[in-house]
Amino acid sequence: RINGDRLWDAIMEMARIGPGIAGGNNRQTLTDEDAEGRALFQKWCDDAGLTMGVDKMGSMFMTRPGTDPDALPVYVGSHLDTQPTGGKYDGVLGVLSALELVRTLNDLNIKTKHPIVVTNWANEEGARFAPAMLASGVFAGVHTLDYAYDRKDPEGKAYGDELKRIGWLGEEEVGARKMHAYYEYHIEQGPILEAEKKEIGVVTHCQGLWWLEFTLTGKEAHTGSTPMAMRVNAGLAMARILEMVQKVAMDAQPNAVGGVGQMFFKPNSRNVLPGTVTFTVDIRTVDQDKLDGMRAAIEKQAAQICDDLGVGCSVEPVGHFDPVTFDPELVKNVRDAAVELGYSHMDIVSGAGHDACWAAKVAPATMVMCPCVDGLSHNEAEDISKEWATAGADVLLRAVLKTAEI
Amino acid sequence: RINGDRLWDAIMEMARIGPGIAGGNNRQTLTDEDAEGRALFQKWCDDAGLTMGVDKMGSMFMTRPGTDPDALPVYVGSHLDTQPTGGKYDGVLGVLSALELVRTLNDLNIKTKHPIVVTNWANEEGARFAPAMLASGVFAGVHTLDYAYDRKDPEGKAYGDELKRIGWLGEEEVGARKMHAYYEYHIEQGPILEAEKKEIGVVTHCQGLWWLEFTLTGKEAHTGSTPMAMRVNAGLAMARILEMVQKVAMDAQPNAVGGVGQMFFKPNSRNVLPGTVTFTVDIRTVDQDKLDGMRAAIEKQAAQICDDLGVGCSVEPVGHFDPVTFDPELVKNVRDAAVELGYSHMDIVSGAGHDACWAAKVAPATMVMCPCVDGLSHNEAEDISKEWATAGADVLLRAVLKTAEI
Ligand SMILES: NC(=O)NCCC(=O)O
Ligand SMILES: NC(=O)NCCC(=O)O
Repeated sequence: RINGDRLWDAIMEMARIGPGIAGGNNRQTLTDEDAEGRALFQKWCDDAGLTMGVDKMGSMFMTRPGTDPDALPVYVGSHLDTQPTGGKYDGVLGVLSALELVRTLNDLNIKTKHPIVVTNWANEEGARFAPAMLASGVFAGVHTLDYAYDRKDPEGKAYGDELKRIGWLGEEEVGARKMHAYYEYHIEQGPILEAEKKEIGVVTHCQGLWWLEFTLTGKEAHTGSTPMAMRVNAGLAMARILEMVQKVAMDAQPNAVGGVGQMFFKPNSRNVLPGTVTFTVDIRTVDQDKLDGMRAAIEKQAAQICDDLGVGCSVEPVGHFDPVTFDPELVKNVRDAAVELGYSHMDIVSGAGHDACWAAKVAPATMVMCPCVDGLSHNEAEDISKEWATAGADVLLRAVLKTAEI
Repeated sequence: RINGDRLWDAIMEMARIGPGIAGGNNRQTLTDEDAEGRALFQKWCDDAGLTMGVDKMGSMFMTRPGTDPDALPVYVGSHLDTQPTGGKYDGVLGVLSALELVRTLNDLNIKTKHPIVVTNWANEEGARFAPAMLASGVFAGVHTLDYAYDRKDPEGKAYGDELKRIGWLGEEEVGARKMHAYYEYHIEQGPILEAEKKEIGVVTHCQGLWWLEFTLTGKEAHTGSTPMAMRVNAGLAMARILEMVQKVAMDAQPNAVGGVGQMFFKPNSRNVLPGTVTFTVDIRTVDQDKLDGMRAAIEKQAAQICDDLGVGCSVEPVGHFDPVTFDPELVKNVRDAAVELGYSHMDIVSGAGHDACWAAKVAPATMVMCPCVDGLSHNEAEDISKEWATAGADVLLRAVLKTAEI
């Protein structure tokens, strides 16, 4: 079993870097705070005797050698970057539990056949640079390095330039590493485990996602002197599209979601009807046909809504992954570990995307989840208990050892 | 008759200050560009022999003396500030036509019994500091000076501080001046005159307005892992309110409008349901009961919409004026002037708010309007012809002379 107090202390120490405004964190990808968090993590890994590799996307791979020189490593990790108003656990729990796992093996002087690589993937959140899971996506061959370097933050700064600026541009070719398996431990970010009073989520699948960025073109005009009949009202079209997305998601129940988190009006003046309205629709479900059907329904109905109002409508997909089925053997390892350790558990589907979803393209992969209070995440009030954190890390240790072989 | 070429040249020269990005202007209130525009206008007034007074709100009053020492002045003006993506004519046409009127009287050596005061009201647009028509509102006793000084721009800078910074804080008590009458010439900013092929709008009324700033409080949560049933979705509530405002405005036809120009999502991240959504509803109509009825209907239905979704809803009025009936004698002067000069004309209601609406509280007031292409305003593509500009300025001259008396 891992040391729950040591794990918790590490999480709390990391949370001091890039504090938020309401108890959470703002340690977004490739900011100075991200660099500071990486340096602390690197120091901890050094102290644990791990060897660092950094790839050209800035992902960090910290290796504990195995006993068999021919055995491929088992990768265990998650991400240290956060949302602008993020919690202390999203991502961090997974990286620091992987570190804790290694610390525990060191304490107990346990050697494994396969090396173990504690991993911190760059830009998982996608808040500063869309899409999410960018570095693991390049690793899995889903995106090119050029595409990733060109991603811009809202101020127009490019991923490649910012990676250089913070000093974490590595030398390794992205994806050159071969994995024996990939494990990721994460908070659920949803309400199911807490509601069902389970300590462990055995993650069998992950929902697929589309991020559809709409740009609606209306006619900038005076809100007072422009008669209703003369308006080309992009704001009204946006409102109808949001209501329609809600309906498409409700019609796709159970196990489907749709919503909008990002919205821009231009010129954004109280007495000017907007010339352009830009927003991103986020839809997800675990069924591939249903996901594609939702996207098609939304694009078709949005075009009709805009047509009726004379509003121009363009849609650009700015994020996507297909639903994922995790590796049955690894899933079984997680379930068996929970049983052996006496933790309550259930199978669940990940509502959020994770680096494990891309890793699953290049290696057997799976995840472990723990509950979070009220299902709240991407919110500074995100919360878990030390007991939950510990239970999941225990399961992670045991499952990883099944794969890494003692 | 005024000199149309000279008027046009002055407008084009002013448009060089604070150029926009698409042929219009960005010369917002109390910016460096505003200061530059004021200095140019001051120079022109100096050259025309006018005496400057500036009040504590930064409004500029440029006096041409009358022949009767006891006669109160006739004020003629509008505003030189613009929207962030504004046109070259909104406001500017009125100020520079008042100047052109004086230049013409000088050329013809015509003296008037009443002094004539060419006026540039500060912060008419309300784009940087809400509400609109702020300085004329203080002048008319609608707002206190303290209230006005405290108005903040989106960066949190206060009106009072910015006025001092650009060097245009005057010494005159606001509203100390007494007016014999107030005339304002402005582009229509709507489509009616052009559609009806009339050169002159005889403005009999101005629509009343409410700006209702909504702050909706939802629950920041992950867009992927938060089931539909658990969402407290402020974005969805916003969409329903926009659709409802549209319906309220359509139900209030004819001669009523409602829409939204300004919108903020927080934290505005693609995979976070917004914690707060803030936006301003702009409703207008010329009938007082209808206006109050629209406001009541919107507030009541918005509360219901938010209640149904569990979303918090607060509403703050950030702008308001009652419908205005302009002075019948001055209105007749404008109509007669159009007839005498042989310009086609019609009575209209101003769709936009103007400083004349507040001036009407303290003196007989009215307006002259000219058409604008496609009814477009608050848009850099705002356009008028030199002939339209000239016709209105001719009518302004003749109407003002009826009141100022030769
Ligand atoms: N786990 C997580 O929040 N990942 C970000 C990508 C997503 O929106 O699912
Ligand atoms: N004329 C004009 O655009 N004034 C600004 C105030 C308003 O929105 O009506």
